[in-house]
Amino acid sequence: MRIARFSTDDGMAFGVVEEDTVAVIAAHPFGELKFTGQRLPFADVRLLAPILPSKVIAIGKNYAGHVREMGGDEPPAEPIVFSKPSTAVIGPNEAITYPQKLSERVDFEGELAVVIGRMCREVPSSRVPDVILGYTCGNDVTARDLQAKDGQWTRAKGFDTFCPLGPWIETEVDPSDLAITTTVNGEVRQDSRTSLLLHDIPSLVEYVSQVMTLLPGDVILTGTPAGVGPLEIGDEVTVTIENIGSLTNRVIARD
Amino acid sequence: MRIARFSTDDGMAFGVVEEDTVAVIAAHPFGELKFTGQRLPFADVRLLAPILPSKVIAIGKNYAGHVREMGGDEPPAEPIVFSKPSTAVIGPNEAITYPQKLSERVDFEGELAVVIGRMCREVPSSRVPDVILGYTCGNDVTARDLQAKDGQWTRAKGFDTFCPLGPWIETEVDPSDLAITTTVNGEVRQDSRTSLLLHDIPSLVEYVSQVMTLLPGDVILTGTPAGVGPLEIGDEVTVTIENIGSLTNRVIARD
Repeated sequence: MRIARFSTDDGMAFGVVEEDTVAVIAAHPFGELKFTGQRLPFADVRLLAPILPSKVIAIGKNYAGHVREMGGDEPPAEPIVFSKPSTAVIGPNEAITYPQKLSERVDFEGELAVVIGRMCREVPSSRVPDVILGYTCGNDVTARDLQAKDGQWTRAKGFDTFCPLGPWIETEVDPSDLAITTTVNGEVRQDSRTSLLLHDIPSLVEYVSQVMTLLPGDVILTGTPAGVGPLEIGDEVTVTIENIGSLTNRVIARD
Repeated sequence: MRIARFSTDDGMAFGVVEEDTVAVIAAHPFGELKFTGQRLPFADVRLLAPILPSKVIAIGKNYAGHVREMGGDEPPAEPIVFSKPSTAVIGPNEAITYPQKLSERVDFEGELAVVIGRMCREVPSSRVPDVILGYTCGNDVTARDLQAKDGQWTRAKGFDTFCPLGPWIETEVDPSDLAITTTVNGEVRQDSRTSLLLHDIPSLVEYVSQVMTLLPGDVILTGTPAGVGPLEIGDEVTVTIENIGSLTNRVIARD
């Protein structure tokens, strides 16, 4: 099932995408779904980020190839946990704003994003599937120069628009071995599989939930594979994950 | 004016604390206040964290004395920005939970907390007073051993209960030179003044708002003075800021 969020004349709604229509969900997509009975042509809705998370937790250096390209010798024994503010979240086809007065190097990082479905803490890895609503594509956009300069990554990864998510939440896919690619202007720049995650999804959710309560809609970005590189103003970047979908955003200059 | 949030039979409400009564606010404390007309005895209300922020942004190494005690030579030229998840927020007299299976060293860090009053971005320092609702006391509780081990501070500072805020939001105080103290079991451990902030509040809000949009209720923790130290299970820690108030929390073991 593909759960999307989209703008309507009244504000916004969630819906289930089925072929070329969207069945509108009453209220929210957590727990048992209730439908309004309304169906909209998919072509007529404008997709938004599929969820507005209370927090976005992200994992660093979780593919060996990316560890190597960042100059690391050994992958970290435990996941590196950082966060992106909810104000960074944008949806499909919304613009990534390049903060050119503050950074000269803004990179894409295509990632599998986990969307939490219920409030939880201290979740053992065996029970992690019960707390996940589904999966979407994410782009952990990063001001690489500020990341190196600051030490803490919050600023470099926290700019408005630096967390594209979408196109929808796929609730039925097995995430353990999916092709993940990132293209820039149609050219493949990242091409990997989620089976290469150093810490898999059950381990990550267990690890993070030992520290902090996860709320419905919270997002965990699972790390980026090798191939990260710079974006320029005018570029179009697309993260595609097998059996989930594609997330495309273009890059514009900040005013 | 002291804006508090408290639990009621119906859930929660905001109110203005005046002597020994609380004037209940209709809806939220942003913009022009509207009152329900109800007044409650202050002694009868249970205070909650005075705000539920969409994000808590915190600043590292912003008092020279604390930079020195952490082994640093020079204060950082620019503010160190990190964040704490909203799930870490607790209120006055709520318990700080010690994650004793994961950490052997949990420190208090008393701090002046800024509460944002309106949505804003790219705020020049001269206009910062316009976007601030007021000030409260904060405690940037930190698992010091995990902070050293992880590099990124998100986990060490992100445990549930690691962000006590309160007792209320003081809207009329000048924050530029206030006494700030932290006591543990009544013994003074931090004793400083906000005039010693290396980056002052207008500079911090300008700096953070260049990166991310700030929303009403967002909190900026401005850094801790010298004197940080460990908490033990059973301790009672109090952060007091002149003309604002006192925030007390006791430490309990995690189940």
